[in-house]
Amino acid sequence: MKIYYAMSISGEQNTDSDKVNTALIEFLKNFGEVLTEHFSNPALTGIGETKLSDKEIHDRDISWLLSADAIIAEVSNISLGVGYEIGRAVENNKKILCIRKESPKRLSAMISGCDKLTFKEYSSIEVAKTFISEFFKQQ
Amino acid sequence: MKIYYAMSISGEQNTDSDKVNTALIEFLKNFGEVLTEHFSNPALTGIGETKLSDKEIHDRDISWLLSADAIIAEVSNISLGVGYEIGRAVENNKKILCIRKESPKRLSAMISGCDKLTFKEYSSIEVAKTFISEFFKQQ
Repeated sequence: MKIYYAMSISGEQNTDSDKVNTALIEFLKNFGEVLTEHFSNPALTGIGETKLSDKEIHDRDISWLLSADAIIAEVSNISLGVGYEIGRAVENNKKILCIRKESPKRLSAMISGCDKLTFKEYSSIEVAKTFISEFFKQQ
Repeated sequence: MKIYYAMSISGEQNTDSDKVNTALIEFLKNFGEVLTEHFSNPALTGIGETKLSDKEIHDRDISWLLSADAIIAEVSNISLGVGYEIGRAVENNKKILCIRKESPKRLSAMISGCDKLTFKEYSSIEVAKTFISEFFKQQ
């Protein structure tokens, strides 16, 4: 099982994003190979990768996305890149789980209204893990 | 010519977003039918549409997106929905112009590194209009 974990890198960041992303990427390793494991490096967020051109990053990430069996997208943070990846994943009939921390903020109808993905709101990292476990059980 | 103008609705908003969106939607009418003309209603941003379900909004917007000949995406504001629309448009080989106000902020490599769209940064609404005119000349 190849897993693509999508998260905000250049977009919005919350104070506990690093903690959440590191914990979820570690947890996902129970279910398969996490292609984007390096996203758990906190130095990446905000500035992105500096050794590769934007085109190299784009092409590598999309190549991973298209080879993945499942996409887990953390959408607590607003992000153009994560939205883009979900859009391309939907068109490629990928299995997609979108999760976000419970929030009164309106989520884009492009995510909450899409019936080609599963969307769940979690109250804690432990609850997020149960959503991930359920998602993989259904595959 | 059917045009889909994509902009942040539930995502980030800047103080001059309403002005920019209204001006650009008006300008786009010179080139064809703007399917998302109602996006220029300032009451929409932040809360979105309240009379339709999220699924109804999603399905209507994606139906418009897939029927459009050209997508103009305003990406000054970070938005999951706009990213999603660009991703689906790329997969459907649409002609795509992404524009944003000049900014030192890093743009997602999923947009800046994608060679299946045109990306331009504008200093003023007038300059944005020239990018739009050039884009339609090339179609």
